[in-house]
Amino acid sequence: MAVPPKERWFDDYQPGEVFEFGDYLVSQEEIIDYARRYDPQPFHVDPVAARGSIYGDVIASGWMTAGVAMRMMCDHFIPPASGLGSPGIDHLRWILPVRPGDRLRLRATVLAVQRSRSKPDRGVVTVRQEMLNQDGAVVMSLEGKSMHRVRPAS
Amino acid sequence: MAVPPKERWFDDYQPGEVFEFGDYLVSQEEIIDYARRYDPQPFHVDPVAARGSIYGDVIASGWMTAGVAMRMMCDHFIPPASGLGSPGIDHLRWILPVRPGDRLRLRATVLAVQRSRSKPDRGVVTVRQEMLNQDGAVVMSLEGKSMHRVRPAS
Repeated sequence: MAVPPKERWFDDYQPGEVFEFGDYLVSQEEIIDYARRYDPQPFHVDPVAARGSIYGDVIASGWMTAGVAMRMMCDHFIPPASGLGSPGIDHLRWILPVRPGDRLRLRATVLAVQRSRSKPDRGVVTVRQEMLNQDGAVVMSLEGKSMHRVRPAS
Repeated sequence: MAVPPKERWFDDYQPGEVFEFGDYLVSQEEIIDYARRYDPQPFHVDPVAARGSIYGDVIASGWMTAGVAMRMMCDHFIPPASGLGSPGIDHLRWILPVRPGDRLRLRATVLAVQRSRSKPDRGVVTVRQEMLNQDGAVVMSLEGKSMHRVRPAS
């Protein structure tokens, strides 16, 4: 049986593994709160202006959706004992609008594992994240790299 | 004289243009507030645990730094009349930790402009964003695409 995600070390990840988790209800309040601070474009913060926009109603900032994905990764996937942060993200795509009342979940697919040559106590795991809404449609996708410690010698 | 960023239409962007703007003081309170909601890893939310981590103190979630960059783009760069949102981001890199007390500013370089074939009333502008700290070091970089309306016929 595979090691549960939250208890893993670098050694435990296998390319091709797929996980699905999370159940996150997006509210208009959160969309507007986030956008007032970090992304105050009219179609994120102003319901009246949003109804006159190409989106027809307020939609979540893509950066908020990325934050929600990160929260799901923290709650269900990233091991607190071995996770060392991330050097970066590739191919972040905002595919469909996220609207008030949407229920989101995340699919995580392990794409690659690479042990560090310069720091052999750790390695980089590449994971494709796909955020799904209540209709099963992919609203956002990205490829994230994260550093993990290897299992300590026992 | 070039059109000021906040008053632009798609037609006004020229590859090679460079802008620098923003002055954002990062507080420990904001780092912890953001991370409690979206990225509760120990080195973002817990000063004691962070001091025992590879980072030595709490550091900002990279997604918070991306949000701060978005805020600077909204305040200084994205035109409310022509900005239509973003299809995605490439090459997002978290290069150096962002710590409490850091002062951030953003450098935006126009990399490319491409008129839409299917929707000729708009086009995509590709901008490299580099977040700089008070020492002039690049702490984060990314390449963002954004959609803009072309100038209306007068």
